[in-house]
Amino acid sequence: MKGVNHELPAPLDSEYKTEAWGIPKDGEKHEPLWIARPKATGKLVNFETLYSGVCHSDLHTGLNHWGPCNFPFVGGHELLGKVVEVGSEVTKFKKGDIVGVGCFIDSCRGCENCEEGSEQYCLKGMTGTYNSAKVHGRTGGNQATFTAGGYSASHSVHEDYVIKIPDGADLERTAPLMCAGITMYSPLNYWGATKEKKMTVGIIGIGGLGTMGIKLAKILNNDVIAISQDKSKEKLALGKGADKYVAMTDPASIEACVGQCDLILNTVSAKHDLNVYIPLLKKGKGILCQLGGVGEPHPISQVVLMFNRFSIVGSLIGGIKETQECIDLCVKNNIYPDIKMCEAKDISSVWENLENGNSEAIRFVIDVKKSLENKDHCPK
Amino acid sequence: MKGVNHELPAPLDSEYKTEAWGIPKDGEKHEPLWIARPKATGKLVNFETLYSGVCHSDLHTGLNHWGPCNFPFVGGHELLGKVVEVGSEVTKFKKGDIVGVGCFIDSCRGCENCEEGSEQYCLKGMTGTYNSAKVHGRTGGNQATFTAGGYSASHSVHEDYVIKIPDGADLERTAPLMCAGITMYSPLNYWGATKEKKMTVGIIGIGGLGTMGIKLAKILNNDVIAISQDKSKEKLALGKGADKYVAMTDPASIEACVGQCDLILNTVSAKHDLNVYIPLLKKGKGILCQLGGVGEPHPISQVVLMFNRFSIVGSLIGGIKETQECIDLCVKNNIYPDIKMCEAKDISSVWENLENGNSEAIRFVIDVKKSLENKDHCPK
Repeated sequence: MKGVNHELPAPLDSEYKTEAWGIPKDGEKHEPLWIARPKATGKLVNFETLYSGVCHSDLHTGLNHWGPCNFPFVGGHELLGKVVEVGSEVTKFKKGDIVGVGCFIDSCRGCENCEEGSEQYCLKGMTGTYNSAKVHGRTGGNQATFTAGGYSASHSVHEDYVIKIPDGADLERTAPLMCAGITMYSPLNYWGATKEKKMTVGIIGIGGLGTMGIKLAKILNNDVIAISQDKSKEKLALGKGADKYVAMTDPASIEACVGQCDLILNTVSAKHDLNVYIPLLKKGKGILCQLGGVGEPHPISQVVLMFNRFSIVGSLIGGIKETQECIDLCVKNNIYPDIKMCEAKDISSVWENLENGNSEAIRFVIDVKKSLENKDHCPK
Repeated sequence: MKGVNHELPAPLDSEYKTEAWGIPKDGEKHEPLWIARPKATGKLVNFETLYSGVCHSDLHTGLNHWGPCNFPFVGGHELLGKVVEVGSEVTKFKKGDIVGVGCFIDSCRGCENCEEGSEQYCLKGMTGTYNSAKVHGRTGGNQATFTAGGYSASHSVHEDYVIKIPDGADLERTAPLMCAGITMYSPLNYWGATKEKKMTVGIIGIGGLGTMGIKLAKILNNDVIAISQDKSKEKLALGKGADKYVAMTDPASIEACVGQCDLILNTVSAKHDLNVYIPLLKKGKGILCQLGGVGEPHPISQVVLMFNRFSIVGSLIGGIKETQECIDLCVKNNIYPDIKMCEAKDISSVWENLENGNSEAIRFVIDVKKSLENKDHCPK
């Protein structure tokens, strides 16, 4: 699939220029470039970016895996920043606050899902933090351009789409929570694992998402069963707090957990057979939640669903209210993903690492301040 | 697949003989035969059968479609009767009461699902009304024999598995509610369509189950979209109370209902592509519930589930408490399936009709009293 190249217009009077790192044209590598951001008017919160996580979705988008991408493309939907200035109508934030922005920066706010705090499923479509048309009127700046993400020096976002980062947060490691954290928290929340009654939660895939899932499910007072292909992740998973470990190559470990899971979060993003995990679900209520975005359809037996009242479901990031809950919970309990710091000049090689499977299962985070000190790799 | 033939032992002292109609040996036709039933001791409620519905599951079981059946086999899990005698520990029923029995007559009563009133998903396995081993101790009589269903003159069932039929019920048409009614009511109840907030409920397949689903969803204050292959069922569906009609051959009718359904109940039991119905689900919460028992797996796209938080689920009959709720609701609101009366001598031809697709989408109900008057077709 091919992307669409655009000429970036000159900044409007309502905009200012800021440094960014992106792909100028389809097929090119990352380069420093100037982009326009809206000034801090109305409800907009302007912040300087401190850290920006690099998510696998960034490269799926920028490499046209999910459809034709709009170029220049600036990725990044795990932003961590410090407020510089707020618009005159902003009530929730002030200069100096530490803030986060996740995967979307606008939605219609009038539909049933927005009203229920599930803006990620806005019936008119959320406005993604990058590569999205500006259609709902809260993004500010030139409405004819596409949104540009967090690989940049600053941004201005409507306060309803900004998260307050609590005091004491480990800022570098908080950035990836805006996507990886909420991706695991939202299904736990929606399907009842945040309630008082203890559940048994299975986590398939002990990578970056999986280890976050183990820690979140545990701190929310559930029993956790870590599930992986073989025994190689057992020590890691138990170290993160899992109560039990199932290796799909070890029938005895499967047998010991048959019928135990109220909810299984499946983070595997490669093609695989779902049906091998279904026996781990609890009869009468078990829910298997897909988080991994596998392209090929899974064959599912209807009879197995019927005779056991099993559910096969999917979930995508989370709403603003629950993202705030997730961040508060993680900071309070010192729950963070494992990260590796990098600079803007490293983005292309980080993408290559992610494309090649990211065997270390860590989240890369761009140190934006440090990147800006490297004048050789900033826009002139 | 082949069934298993058994010799029926002579009745124990704790049992009595009653007339039944069943398949004596694997592969044979229905014949009159004597079977043993437990006497009305302890918690057992003895009743004379008035009506017994004929369900498609009866023939799936008796023809070994779902595994090797035990013979002699007596089908029927939609029993409607009049209490003749009650055991000394029975507190809920008395002589003369009109009662119903559905698809199971015992379960463990100790597991999480039994305690929550979902005995149909008993973690130790419910005891089916027919062709089940007696393992939980409440079925009475000879524990070494298999359960025998409602195509018979009388039965004794533990009071916890007996439904009270309210005054004013249309008895002939109440019998099939014990399976067809609760099959539709339970998923409506479990997934929220019995709550105050109005939902939009889709019903796929406008046959016997589908028309019950339309009536139940409407009386529970929901909007109902009837969904069928072509336009041939439109008048029928709207006549039963559906608000809208979608014919899958008519793109405009699909387009008019895209994204509207909170819950879709899919009653289709032939092989079909599920994915064509998924666009009718409401983004962020839509649930597609499988009720039809299709053998072949359905291919389901994980990405579609994720980006819309859709659920694909299954459901099987219902628990005792919700069966009682369903019967009370149906009788109060005069909601019944369309039926055709038959006699025990007709069972084999009724099964053939069902095997050939039952184009009339009606429920056959055996008039047991009338069948007993036909001495030529009773056991000698």
